[in-house]
Amino acid sequence: MQAIQMARPEAGAAVLIENLEVPTPGPGEVRVRVQNTAICGTDRHIYHWDPSVASMITPPVTIGHEFCGHIDTLGDGVEGWNLEDYVSAEMHIVCGRCRSCQAGNKHICEKTQIAGLHRAGCFAEYVVVPAGNLVRLDPKIVPPHIGSFLDALGNAVHTVQSASSIAGRHVLVSGYGAIGAMAAAVVEFEGAKSLTITEVMPGHLERAKKWAAGLNGRIPVSIHDPATEGPDMVERIRQATRGGVDVVLEMSGAPPAILAGLEVLYPGGEMMQLGIPSASNLEIQNFAQEFIFKGLTWRGILGRRMFATWDEMLSLLQRGLDVEHIVTHRLPMSSFHDGMALLDRGEAHKVVLDPTA
Amino acid sequence: MQAIQMARPEAGAAVLIENLEVPTPGPGEVRVRVQNTAICGTDRHIYHWDPSVASMITPPVTIGHEFCGHIDTLGDGVEGWNLEDYVSAEMHIVCGRCRSCQAGNKHICEKTQIAGLHRAGCFAEYVVVPAGNLVRLDPKIVPPHIGSFLDALGNAVHTVQSASSIAGRHVLVSGYGAIGAMAAAVVEFEGAKSLTITEVMPGHLERAKKWAAGLNGRIPVSIHDPATEGPDMVERIRQATRGGVDVVLEMSGAPPAILAGLEVLYPGGEMMQLGIPSASNLEIQNFAQEFIFKGLTWRGILGRRMFATWDEMLSLLQRGLDVEHIVTHRLPMSSFHDGMALLDRGEAHKVVLDPTA
Amino acid sequence: MQAIQMARPEAGAAVLIENLEVPTPGPGEVRVRVQNTAICGTDRHIYHWDPSVASMITPPVTIGHEFCGHIDTLGDGVEGWNLEDYVSAEMHIVCGRCRSCQAGNKHICEKTQIAGLHRAGCFAEYVVVPAGNLVRLDPKIVPPHIGSFLDALGNAVHTVQSASSIAGRHVLVSGYGAIGAMAAAVVEFEGAKSLTITEVMPGHLERAKKWAAGLNGRIPVSIHDPATEGPDMVERIRQATRGGVDVVLEMSGAPPAILAGLEVLYPGGEMMQLGIPSASNLEIQNFAQEFIFKGLTWRGILGRRMFATWDEMLSLLQRGLDVEHIVTHRLPMSSFHDGMALLDRGEAHKVVLDPTA
Amino acid sequence: MQAIQMARPEAGAAVLIENLEVPTPGPGEVRVRVQNTAICGTDRHIYHWDPSVASMITPPVTIGHEFCGHIDTLGDGVEGWNLEDYVSAEMHIVCGRCRSCQAGNKHICEKTQIAGLHRAGCFAEYVVVPAGNLVRLDPKIVPPHIGSFLDALGNAVHTVQSASSIAGRHVLVSGYGAIGAMAAAVVEFEGAKSLTITEVMPGHLERAKKWAAGLNGRIPVSIHDPATEGPDMVERIRQATRGGVDVVLEMSGAPPAILAGLEVLYPGGEMMQLGIPSASNLEIQNFAQEFIFKGLTWRGILGRRMFATWDEMLSLLQRGLDVEHIVTHRLPMSSFHDGMALLDRGEAHKVVLDPTA
Repeated sequence: MQAIQMARPEAGAAVLIENLEVPTPGPGEVRVRVQNTAICGTDRHIYHWDPSVASMITPPVTIGHEFCGHIDTLGDGVEGWNLEDYVSAEMHIVCGRCRSCQAGNKHICEKTQIAGLHRAGCFAEYVVVPAGNLVRLDPKIVPPHIGSFLDALGNAVHTVQSASSIAGRHVLVSGYGAIGAMAAAVVEFEGAKSLTITEVMPGHLERAKKWAAGLNGRIPVSIHDPATEGPDMVERIRQATRGGVDVVLEMSGAPPAILAGLEVLYPGGEMMQLGIPSASNLEIQNFAQEFIFKGLTWRGILGRRMFATWDEMLSLLQRGLDVEHIVTHRLPMSSFHDGMALLDRGEAHKVVLDPTA
Repeated sequence: MQAIQMARPEAGAAVLIENLEVPTPGPGEVRVRVQNTAICGTDRHIYHWDPSVASMITPPVTIGHEFCGHIDTLGDGVEGWNLEDYVSAEMHIVCGRCRSCQAGNKHICEKTQIAGLHRAGCFAEYVVVPAGNLVRLDPKIVPPHIGSFLDALGNAVHTVQSASSIAGRHVLVSGYGAIGAMAAAVVEFEGAKSLTITEVMPGHLERAKKWAAGLNGRIPVSIHDPATEGPDMVERIRQATRGGVDVVLEMSGAPPAILAGLEVLYPGGEMMQLGIPSASNLEIQNFAQEFIFKGLTWRGILGRRMFATWDEMLSLLQRGLDVEHIVTHRLPMSSFHDGMALLDRGEAHKVVLDPTA
Repeated sequence: MQAIQMARPEAGAAVLIENLEVPTPGPGEVRVRVQNTAICGTDRHIYHWDPSVASMITPPVTIGHEFCGHIDTLGDGVEGWNLEDYVSAEMHIVCGRCRSCQAGNKHICEKTQIAGLHRAGCFAEYVVVPAGNLVRLDPKIVPPHIGSFLDALGNAVHTVQSASSIAGRHVLVSGYGAIGAMAAAVVEFEGAKSLTITEVMPGHLERAKKWAAGLNGRIPVSIHDPATEGPDMVERIRQATRGGVDVVLEMSGAPPAILAGLEVLYPGGEMMQLGIPSASNLEIQNFAQEFIFKGLTWRGILGRRMFATWDEMLSLLQRGLDVEHIVTHRLPMSSFHDGMALLDRGEAHKVVLDPTA
Repeated sequence: MQAIQMARPEAGAAVLIENLEVPTPGPGEVRVRVQNTAICGTDRHIYHWDPSVASMITPPVTIGHEFCGHIDTLGDGVEGWNLEDYVSAEMHIVCGRCRSCQAGNKHICEKTQIAGLHRAGCFAEYVVVPAGNLVRLDPKIVPPHIGSFLDALGNAVHTVQSASSIAGRHVLVSGYGAIGAMAAAVVEFEGAKSLTITEVMPGHLERAKKWAAGLNGRIPVSIHDPATEGPDMVERIRQATRGGVDVVLEMSGAPPAILAGLEVLYPGGEMMQLGIPSASNLEIQNFAQEFIFKGLTWRGILGRRMFATWDEMLSLLQRGLDVEHIVTHRLPMSSFHDGMALLDRGEAHKVVLDPTA
């Protein structure tokens, strides 16, 4: 089968393999015939062999961890699933026995194995996953090009869920990349009082404005470019929100955005930190003034709750949560280099790949 | 001035007084010129001198506790308010010193005085309230006929807020009277997975169906009449919600509805109890099976949080929460007997009265 | 091997079987050599063939679901456990796939199988359990006669955990049977402001007083017998707690105790309902006054959280939580009829059985 | 009267004034005759005119904000208090009208005035406070030398309360100064699984060891000096707590302690940040690895909840929470220079001053 692998531990080593052996599911596993898969930010870090992810991978390995498809083969002992079931899967594979798992927090399992990093991923015609990780999809609600990136939508929903509440509150989405754009849509859907978006890349800003224009005033949206607005931006947002926002969803990982996030929060507010800074160290200015004395809550966000997040995400899609605009490009899997380049240039939000094309 | 008072402690004793002295605000109080006021379920209990409220009132007293209007006179020491400010007010007047108030739970103050019961209410041309109870309204967002029943909308929002979450969950609204209808609108607005409505009065059922039809499929709504569906209704709702609903908002107080509410809840679910049974005792069938073994949470709901509920309610209105359909009748205050009759016959949802007409 | 079975579906049908075949663990299961086991209230319901449990059991079945012992045989595929490991086990065996399990609420699994009811229990020399249900014990912290009733201690700890907090709050334990006595000890340990105990059985009252006397004033304890104090009891407790208690742990299931529990709660308080009424219906007096208008929270409690409750319980024992006094009798397993009689007469708290004696 | 004032805006400008005019309470205020007062860390910052506090003070002003005493004069309109009532007071004076206050979060009021900084404090024979800020004390439970530092004990209790739970969890107290020492005592009292203490000052370490020795093994305590243990300390604590602690109470503000606090937390853990770094900027190493990927929660802590914290604190004292060892020195108020020096050298925990001596 065809698959995209990191062939060697270095940037530029991602290649399309033409004749990889189709994997066989072990006991308790299933093989899924991949219909659509999507490129995630993590895939780009792997593709460029960034230090933040390089240590987690031993090439050669098939990359990719967002997909949907149909069950093709059932391993021994698998119950409750049938051939041709339409599915996606949680690609964090957890131990079930560590202190986190035993406490019901599988998403922070001590021994998480991530498909596409620690084991074979889904940029391939077929992928094998544990049956316990499968999530059933309804094709009437989730078409394949949307089903291809539920892992990422789950990140967005989990970030939103981790705030103590959204309805009736001023929410800021910091960073309007693909996951930030999904988070913005969820925030609108769950009844926030207002939505503020900050972003620096022109393409993302343009897409944010276009999306906001299409909302027909359903929610007050203000969009800011800190690069052009400068230090006044924080004060402007504070004034527009009667003293500051209640919730920041920090999806960018950019240090200035993290600092601005703390600054724009009203006392008692909370910041959900999904974005990952590229440097390992982070310097926080005016830490006492902006964090301690304001009694803020800051929370690190990882993955998705298994499977409460999946359940909420699917119900939002069923209700009509619109994420169609997130998909800016659909390419055959063989064009993945083009997809990576589009994302690197900020010209794409979500690039969906088709391994059957 | 004109005002509606209970003249004597008996049913039929509500009268329109023509020349009541205009009240003077004391220190820390303001006088408001009432623009619109609305009839609440409690007013009907008073009007009919039902035992549940009779013990709380010593006639003669001006009734009514939902209104909006403009500030007319400021008492001594009032700061932060100006003449002609457009306002509504929380009509629960709390002590600030009891254990509940000190713990930040003013809505369950031990010594709550309710305007319209314990002291003069707002079915009048002028009403006096403590300045600390005022809530500022924006006329562009809250027109007077909506501002007239924010107290009731606050009940609905507080009931919804008291559930641990709404987004992505199956929610049942038990009873589609005025407050139930508002709660249904809020539930749709905050992203519930599905909405189930139960109601027995034909007029209310018809209004529920008409409202649901106007949603254009934004949320799956199913409407049930337990009187015609009989005991199968519970099982039907369970099946439609994959085992049961997550949240019941019990707005009716009818014992069969309360029991059905427990029965349709999925294990771990929660029921918010705003509805008040007319009898003082309540019998629960299969208590262990339907409540304990399912690990349910049941919560009594009273009033509105001061002022977190007001803040959320106003932001929902600003976002476009539509409660226009709740107002079925607008009458001059002098026609209050007609309004009561409409409500008694289930022909009205919210009757707004105009003391200036 | 020896085991106690319900031989037929009727009261009086519990017998000691002398030569039952020793069970063989299947894949993923282990066999444990039982060292000590204890009689639970549920076992008494089974023994007397009470309607509340009769429908769940198909005799003949080995009863009992509280025990500790040593691993004797490992089934296929079991990892992380060794022969002679000292263990207890969660005896609720859950499906892992239903909506509750998927949401992390295994203790309310739709398809729970309880060992000792739905499948063979631990009143036997050997018991087979799924490896995933095992809990490792440290013999220096948990001697066998304490390890024999961790399932029940887990009920007590789960009930306490389900309250929003204990430290600094007035707590009432309603019913001082074995689990009530354990809950009282936990409440003292976790820093409650005061402890109130209500109980009607003379033996239990005496044990409560003896236990309280041994606390050397570490916590204000007041013990009440509603049978002798009559209707004034509620008012007396309210006055002693400045208006009412914050938390009621209802362990008795007696309807008058449930009603008194609601009555003594201060507004905003919460009642945890572990006790199971013997009748299927429950009548609540003054429901609006005592529940709705006070904004109470009432929660059904079932089992123990897997495995957060086990973790907290073991840490409390390690810290020195003293439950030694709960064990009033230790008998050879063959004397189980005597143990049941002691419990029926209220002369015992916890009866530990030794199948090796 | 005598009082200690900052005479000028500079270090060394604190002086004992001999004949300051006794203040007169305005409407709604009371005057208290100070019996004991205590030196807080903030007072030392003021004394040394540290930049972190200098901007908040306009000399001359009487400093000090921890005290107890007896009511001496009632201002106009004060109800519910009598002459000679034994009291302490919350010294954060809040507006009651800002968004925080309206939401029930008075401790993070936008317009907080702190007595001893923004207005006259309690290092004096008499102090005037708003009646609404008074807290009644029972002299049998709270002797004056303990009542003198309830503001600080409130900081400790509020920090503990802000964690989602303490019972059954591994807790680390970072910094064993006066407030850290109080927090440690509360953590033991509320049933933590284990207590780990980190501290660098020899005197504080010695006091920590002495206190721990007096606990008679009631809780496993381990005490660490990062200065001597070096980078292995984190790994040692992780191993002793099966992977990391659940809760860090960060009371020191020292950047290395903050970083170690994040590092020793188990995934899903939480850090309460009361300690204030002396520099305005804080650099966090391995931010993604130690914070985001572990899904931690970090919370800024300010002041005390009004008045839930006071209520819990007084109930802990009534239960027997022992904080006697916190008071290392009792001096006449005129010896305040000596007290400051003792604290600067780390030779004292709490220095109580007596203005009547």
